[in-house]
Amino acid sequence: MGRTTVRVGVVGASGYGGTELLRLLEAHPVMTATVIAARSRAGEPVRSVAPNLRTDALLEDVDPVALGALDVVFLATPHEASLELAPDLVDRGVPVIDLSGAFRLSAADHAEWYGGVHPAPELAADGGRAAVYGLTEWSRAELPGAHLVANPGCYPTATVLALAPLAGLIEAGSVVVDAKSGTSGAGRSTADALSASTVLGDLVAYGAPRHRHTREIETAIAGASGIDIGAIGFTPHLVPMSRGLLSTCSARVRDGVGPDDLRAALVDRYAHEGFVDVLPAGEFPRTKALAGSNGCRIGLLHDPRAGRVVVTGAIDNLGKGAAGQAIQNANVLLGLDEGAGLTAIGMHP
Amino acid sequence: MGRTTVRVGVVGASGYGGTELLRLLEAHPVMTATVIAARSRAGEPVRSVAPNLRTDALLEDVDPVALGALDVVFLATPHEASLELAPDLVDRGVPVIDLSGAFRLSAADHAEWYGGVHPAPELAADGGRAAVYGLTEWSRAELPGAHLVANPGCYPTATVLALAPLAGLIEAGSVVVDAKSGTSGAGRSTADALSASTVLGDLVAYGAPRHRHTREIETAIAGASGIDIGAIGFTPHLVPMSRGLLSTCSARVRDGVGPDDLRAALVDRYAHEGFVDVLPAGEFPRTKALAGSNGCRIGLLHDPRAGRVVVTGAIDNLGKGAAGQAIQNANVLLGLDEGAGLTAIGMHP
Amino acid sequence: MGRTTVRVGVVGASGYGGTELLRLLEAHPVMTATVIAARSRAGEPVRSVAPNLRTDALLEDVDPVALGALDVVFLATPHEASLELAPDLVDRGVPVIDLSGAFRLSAADHAEWYGGVHPAPELAADGGRAAVYGLTEWSRAELPGAHLVANPGCYPTATVLALAPLAGLIEAGSVVVDAKSGTSGAGRSTADALSASTVLGDLVAYGAPRHRHTREIETAIAGASGIDIGAIGFTPHLVPMSRGLLSTCSARVRDGVGPDDLRAALVDRYAHEGFVDVLPAGEFPRTKALAGSNGCRIGLLHDPRAGRVVVTGAIDNLGKGAAGQAIQNANVLLGLDEGAGLTAIGMHP
Amino acid sequence: MGRTTVRVGVVGASGYGGTELLRLLEAHPVMTATVIAARSRAGEPVRSVAPNLRTDALLEDVDPVALGALDVVFLATPHEASLELAPDLVDRGVPVIDLSGAFRLSAADHAEWYGGVHPAPELAADGGRAAVYGLTEWSRAELPGAHLVANPGCYPTATVLALAPLAGLIEAGSVVVDAKSGTSGAGRSTADALSASTVLGDLVAYGAPRHRHTREIETAIAGASGIDIGAIGFTPHLVPMSRGLLSTCSARVRDGVGPDDLRAALVDRYAHEGFVDVLPAGEFPRTKALAGSNGCRIGLLHDPRAGRVVVTGAIDNLGKGAAGQAIQNANVLLGLDEGAGLTAIGMHP
Repeated sequence: MGRTTVRVGVVGASGYGGTELLRLLEAHPVMTATVIAARSRAGEPVRSVAPNLRTDALLEDVDPVALGALDVVFLATPHEASLELAPDLVDRGVPVIDLSGAFRLSAADHAEWYGGVHPAPELAADGGRAAVYGLTEWSRAELPGAHLVANPGCYPTATVLALAPLAGLIEAGSVVVDAKSGTSGAGRSTADALSASTVLGDLVAYGAPRHRHTREIETAIAGASGIDIGAIGFTPHLVPMSRGLLSTCSARVRDGVGPDDLRAALVDRYAHEGFVDVLPAGEFPRTKALAGSNGCRIGLLHDPRAGRVVVTGAIDNLGKGAAGQAIQNANVLLGLDEGAGLTAIGMHP
Repeated sequence: MGRTTVRVGVVGASGYGGTELLRLLEAHPVMTATVIAARSRAGEPVRSVAPNLRTDALLEDVDPVALGALDVVFLATPHEASLELAPDLVDRGVPVIDLSGAFRLSAADHAEWYGGVHPAPELAADGGRAAVYGLTEWSRAELPGAHLVANPGCYPTATVLALAPLAGLIEAGSVVVDAKSGTSGAGRSTADALSASTVLGDLVAYGAPRHRHTREIETAIAGASGIDIGAIGFTPHLVPMSRGLLSTCSARVRDGVGPDDLRAALVDRYAHEGFVDVLPAGEFPRTKALAGSNGCRIGLLHDPRAGRVVVTGAIDNLGKGAAGQAIQNANVLLGLDEGAGLTAIGMHP
Repeated sequence: MGRTTVRVGVVGASGYGGTELLRLLEAHPVMTATVIAARSRAGEPVRSVAPNLRTDALLEDVDPVALGALDVVFLATPHEASLELAPDLVDRGVPVIDLSGAFRLSAADHAEWYGGVHPAPELAADGGRAAVYGLTEWSRAELPGAHLVANPGCYPTATVLALAPLAGLIEAGSVVVDAKSGTSGAGRSTADALSASTVLGDLVAYGAPRHRHTREIETAIAGASGIDIGAIGFTPHLVPMSRGLLSTCSARVRDGVGPDDLRAALVDRYAHEGFVDVLPAGEFPRTKALAGSNGCRIGLLHDPRAGRVVVTGAIDNLGKGAAGQAIQNANVLLGLDEGAGLTAIGMHP
Repeated sequence: MGRTTVRVGVVGASGYGGTELLRLLEAHPVMTATVIAARSRAGEPVRSVAPNLRTDALLEDVDPVALGALDVVFLATPHEASLELAPDLVDRGVPVIDLSGAFRLSAADHAEWYGGVHPAPELAADGGRAAVYGLTEWSRAELPGAHLVANPGCYPTATVLALAPLAGLIEAGSVVVDAKSGTSGAGRSTADALSASTVLGDLVAYGAPRHRHTREIETAIAGASGIDIGAIGFTPHLVPMSRGLLSTCSARVRDGVGPDDLRAALVDRYAHEGFVDVLPAGEFPRTKALAGSNGCRIGLLHDPRAGRVVVTGAIDNLGKGAAGQAIQNANVLLGLDEGAGLTAIGMHP
């Protein structure tokens, strides 16, 4: 790419996906946040929503004309807003990375899991101009020049990266995904259930069995691996930490499949990936080691007593689970170095 | 019981099970901690291990003669110490409540999961003078006058209470237990992995697939329900909170079993229990609401897509998962009011 | 008191002061929560605001007639609501314990720190029918039969208990109070600043130099000790924990005053108090050791290099800092055992 | 500097200062960690102490000859080890950045606060070949070509940056510093007091009045500003978070000094600094907004009632408070871009 500056728009900049995009863009070697928009808080200082930043900029209103003139637009908006904004921006010819669930499912699945008729079915997963499902490691070839990228959800990112290489080695219908997220996964929220007073010292499941990511995980594994693992049992949990997501996936191993087969499938698949690490046997991934990063770490264990494999995938829900992967996708889409502005290393302690 | 004071011994008082026993005994209407022993820290003030208490007492060395003269002895010791101490105390005729895993399994299972030949096989779960497995709600009839109670582990307590009533309604071999505990479940520890710097903001699985509670859960469900649910897949996790344990249990539902059958099995079983609440449909149990209490709360959901039931059991790992249940067992054993000195209500916020 | 049941009303039961009152009342030997009211959430289940409780009761609307027929009413309402409700209830002859700041200051101070003319100046701290300022250990004699008790704020409780005995030994105008609270001190809130995502892993000062408790601390120390310590420097902080409050108070020591004088002043004052402990030299109070309790612990150190004394007071902000002390005050007011339904022991770990 | 690679040694790599250096060096454009040494854990994988890193390297033993051949050596060792290692390395001609307290004080102060006769008094703060006290913003001119840099302590960094510009505007002897740190400030530790079970939900003061940083703050302010502010009252606290440090400094304002004078002194001093931000009036610095960064943020408020100024300084204790500032110092010492490998932006949420 000949340009030295890539002009970027961030819409929905007041949410956590948006503010994390702004943080990552500060460190990006060529991308610059040219437009920072948040409809509901337009006019407020960016620092009122992102106190970590040092800018004096104000949040702008959403102006499709201005956005259409940029090199790429990130929609960090609720899916309803993305459904409204993305088709117009795509028509204006600007590549769009949508962090919401608006374009991840087929139109029929969207109707079932999000409710309502999909207003832009041609951009849904089964449409004629379908968005690219942007799990980068599994969709790299489709990203360059894409018009619209459906950036994966946080739970699907960790779960699909961990399970997809094993899809052919496990029994369909046996998959149980027990996932845990820090509170930022629920977005900026004023809900009592997400207040510090409630969350500190507390642990709770939620959302099952109809969490929208359930179906996204199933279809994304099928899309990545070509194998239908059946309906999964998916139970998310809220953990008293701000960032971090761990997906613990258990499945029955097919007859004749041994621990070496399982490990080889994972290790071989990700041997050349810069952001996905398969840990040595006996190690479990820790979320904090990925905090602020775009990394994903996968731990594998074989349980011969139960005839099961357990694979755990850890990410920063705002990193590889949202803004980090969005940058990674934009880098590939625009022909930049895939890792530009990103790190695979989080914190310790 | 005619006595107004029950003289109690707490051995292993420097661990968290021990200090929680001391806290609960402070509020108990008739029990008094007459002997407070901790071999390795004998001579130190009790407050050096339990800064919440107000006593000026010192930790004593372990004196079997003195313990043998008490009304009941709680062993909050590691299982190696319990294996050594319990047979002698039982011989002296004092009822023993052992909080360790020393007497929870059969001698053969003990050898496999704890290592080494069981030194007192007659007191193991399949011995001639077997300890009573003290999951109070399922062993109430056997407790009065018992010579030795094997107080259940924290993960088994939450898991068995949640799963046992459903054992006949689910498919054997389909059970996945994904459990999460606050750090106190690992005991007082100086391990780097349990330091605040490591744990804060972090989430990790550990111990699978050979965690000792795996086999205890299987045998305790069989013991309670009379049904063998097969080998379970059990994965524990460490959560950044001090107390609290949540066990998320998923199983395939047998053909012909509906959501009402599942709910009825749980509700009917615990309708008259003072410490176990089955929550209304749609509610998930929260750990903090049980902090400091002896309560257990169970949430149930049916997932027809996946053909699964998910049952979540929450406790305070030091309460119903350790010291609380030990007091409850001692109350029943001694003919006191079962709830004496205990509450079913935790904290919010 | 001849009665076996004391009928209690809790108004503002949806806030944290209110829900903690309900939790404590569950364990109270004679008090029963007869009326549980919360104007803005009337009709909702009590468990929607207090998931730790087991009741099926609903929150009621505020009915002064019904409240007037009770034995005591706790107002856990914002000060605006207390200003409206308390005069009417007092006129109806029911003793009122007000947990808000409505009646803690003189009418003039109230106008300056809370804004607006005090609508019931005769009940303000300098009024003809002034409320009793209910720092129990310093107002015990005035409580029996009181018509209105102004329950102290959380910061003043810890700070005044720690500083008042030293007021005559320190230099006026030299007092710096650096206080830290868990998030529940800010009440049930939907503010972004109090969300778990914001608070976890974060620490920040707030509210200085015009926090309302500044003036309350000054006047309460003067009221308790008879000594004016001058204007204090008061800076509160928000700490990532749910409960707990620590007030670190530093003052220049008067010429001729030595460490033994300081210690003796504190120890002698609280030697016979059931809820206030002065820790041995070298020990610092920990907040968690008081979680859920009505206790207060005070640590003292003398810094001869700086010519200063540092006294730290720890409480549970919802316990001795709010609901616990309210119960304690009601016990004294009604002639019950002062400690009924309360404990001085918190948690560890 | 003509070289494209700067060969770096990290000694004491198993501690948190060491592991954070390794994390920062991963992102440094020219520095490379050529030697990674930790005497007590030599032979173990680096990832056993820094699970966030991706290296397969092992910790090495300390080899002064190998270290002497490098471009710069960071000592992240306890002060006893630094006292032993630094003189030898300095003699070998390699520039040393010492993160310990070994060379921060005069020999006499060292004897008083650290105990024992300083073994290398010529390198102490008052020696003939005194180390440069590396508070970068105040010692920038002395750093290029320095033989030894005494990297400041975490509390002194935040406190001195906040107070030094005000030293001439406040009354000597009136300064109270109330400081709070996350647990990593205490280093990698197996102490019961630093276990997650103890720390979570807890808050406590410690170390006063003889914490070693007390004297370092006093002498560093004198060194930076040329003004003796007298003995300070210094009370550190342990906060339940992993990283982050906030120093709340209160002092009496001199007669005739107004709020504009105070603000101007701070703003003017740091107007051109890349890592120190003075926040607008009314804003308080938050620690998490600096997590992982080398930034420092300062909030200022004037309290005319109390005649005091309160200035709060926030840093990441492992960033600007340790490893970040060490890199910053090395950058200046070696003639590199001062901000190379560093950021001033932390996390939110």
